[in-house]
Amino acid sequence: MEHEINLPEVVAEVTAAFARYECALVNNDLVILDELFWNSPHTLRYGATENLIGYDTIQAFRNSRSPKNLARDLRQTVITTYGRDYATANTEFTKAGEARVGRQSHTWLRLPQGWRIVAAHVSWMDN
Amino acid sequence: MEHEINLPEVVAEVTAAFARYECALVNNDLVILDELFWNSPHTLRYGATENLIGYDTIQAFRNSRSPKNLARDLRQTVITTYGRDYATANTEFTKAGEARVGRQSHTWLRLPQGWRIVAAHVSWMDN
Repeated sequence: MEHEINLPEVVAEVTAAFARYECALVNNDLVILDELFWNSPHTLRYGATENLIGYDTIQAFRNSRSPKNLARDLRQTVITTYGRDYATANTEFTKAGEARVGRQSHTWLRLPQGWRIVAAHVSWMDN
Repeated sequence: MEHEINLPEVVAEVTAAFARYECALVNNDLVILDELFWNSPHTLRYGATENLIGYDTIQAFRNSRSPKNLARDLRQTVITTYGRDYATANTEFTKAGEARVGRQSHTWLRLPQGWRIVAAHVSWMDN
């Protein structure tokens, strides 16, 4: 099957969803973070220090997380869309007090309720 | 849009592609590894020690990589398919000589030539 890559209107939608997620993350806005993850036992998030499988597990992690030191700067962000319903968003980031480069990968899926993250992976790159 | 999750025949296809990739990886079969990554400047791979953007960059990295110590054991592998053309494959892994847990995330897309990895992220979890 062919998929049209980076249709401008689809890229615009995913870019907006990605920006909304980033803003919610650095402000620890749990309502929006929960909204943007797919509410499913299949949703998965590998974090820097934890591997979480299932929406409920991810939500519990967020609720127990320290809201401090969440600010970060993004760089080299790459958003790619495949057809109208599927996208990846990858970015590097840096954070005060951490010498390593961070990386965040999201797989996004368009659902009837909007774009949702179905899988995420966040890590620090080894020096 | 609705996407049927984990249609058995689609899961079977992606599971086969995932297994083929794993076999090629531990045997450093560069032809198959190159085949299974989408041949596009949009393809992206974050590795444990490198951030690679574009198929050519990923291919050059593989060609210069040591073929030693590639063996690993997978655990907690989760493959999820969304409709007939989209899938994610996530797995933890362990490797001799490395105390940390590894994580590998793949976003797969069905193209006319077959299933291809459009984005990948490999990292070690911080202890």
